[in-house]
Amino acid sequence: MVISAPSGGGKTVVRSGLLKLNKKFAFSVTCTTRPRRPGEVDGKDYFFVTVEQFQRLRKDGKLLEWAKVHGNYYGTPVKSVMAVLQKGRIPVMTIDVKGARSVKKLFPAAVTVFLLPPDLKTLVQRLRGRGEAPENVAVRLRTARSELKVASTFDYLVINDSLPEAVREVAAIAELETRRTARNLDKVESFGSQLRKKKI
Amino acid sequence: MVISAPSGGGKTVVRSGLLKLNKKFAFSVTCTTRPRRPGEVDGKDYFFVTVEQFQRLRKDGKLLEWAKVHGNYYGTPVKSVMAVLQKGRIPVMTIDVKGARSVKKLFPAAVTVFLLPPDLKTLVQRLRGRGEAPENVAVRLRTARSELKVASTFDYLVINDSLPEAVREVAAIAELETRRTARNLDKVESFGSQLRKKKI
Repeated sequence: MVISAPSGGGKTVVRSGLLKLNKKFAFSVTCTTRPRRPGEVDGKDYFFVTVEQFQRLRKDGKLLEWAKVHGNYYGTPVKSVMAVLQKGRIPVMTIDVKGARSVKKLFPAAVTVFLLPPDLKTLVQRLRGRGEAPENVAVRLRTARSELKVASTFDYLVINDSLPEAVREVAAIAELETRRTARNLDKVESFGSQLRKKKI
Repeated sequence: MVISAPSGGGKTVVRSGLLKLNKKFAFSVTCTTRPRRPGEVDGKDYFFVTVEQFQRLRKDGKLLEWAKVHGNYYGTPVKSVMAVLQKGRIPVMTIDVKGARSVKKLFPAAVTVFLLPPDLKTLVQRLRGRGEAPENVAVRLRTARSELKVASTFDYLVINDSLPEAVREVAAIAELETRRTARNLDKVESFGSQLRKKKI
């Protein structure tokens, strides 16, 4: 499950909501070179690494995707995702728009969700509300322009108006995606095999 | 919403369940040359037509899809579907596997669901339970073999074990499909336009 949004779109809070809602969802930790914000825990919220460490991970092919966003590097360690999948849980990744597209290309089975604030006013309020400096708000809004252009390549669009509602919708998408025929070919095969064996 | 299943798979009862569950679903009536079964109402369950009338509709391009199944013709009048769409409701079509694929080809926006009984034993019981003669049961099981082969081309697979559960799942699929980005490009465009207009 890949959740993406313009900066301030609420991907982090939606992810937290999902994890609280159902134990089948698990956080796949991203690594980043951006400075830690107050309250963030290393290894839990992010793996905070230096630019040097990041480049090493990238060169060694340890990252599923990576991107430079607002001057900082972000990357998804392959290990984090595999660890979650091996436990039979659904890895929830919150990554930027470019990263989301890379993951979808590598893993077409990934489900990509684009979170959109109900309107621009709300997005600006959220960015200011989390204490971004005016020049940072401007940078993020400019980035949002180009992010919006590729939103159409995502599988689902969820309007993040009410947080509980957005969380409920993303969870329902994950649930229903398990009913996709492409994910259930074993069941079709098993029924077909019963039919072939039967003398009619 | 196109619901398909092997004969005896329960497409008719699932459709009835959907229509009872929510008024947004509406029945798009199929026409058929097969004899009316006890309790079936012309113009409600099917439009019962002669082979001659059917061929006329077909030649005049009035059918969205048509197929010959077990010696009888079945077809979806374009008019039935359009009437439902124009009311802003979701047309629910229960058609055979071949017809479902034709509709999907013509309307990629159609959502196709393949209903599968939990196992072969249940399918045989259901066919016998509705009073099919043993030779008809055999014919339907043979048809099911080839139908299963194309099940993988459907969007969703729903195991029809418990009827209320299957109905709930198909309704949830319809609900979540409205969140597909491809069906919400207007919302993406509207937000993008707000961003472009804003001086940053």
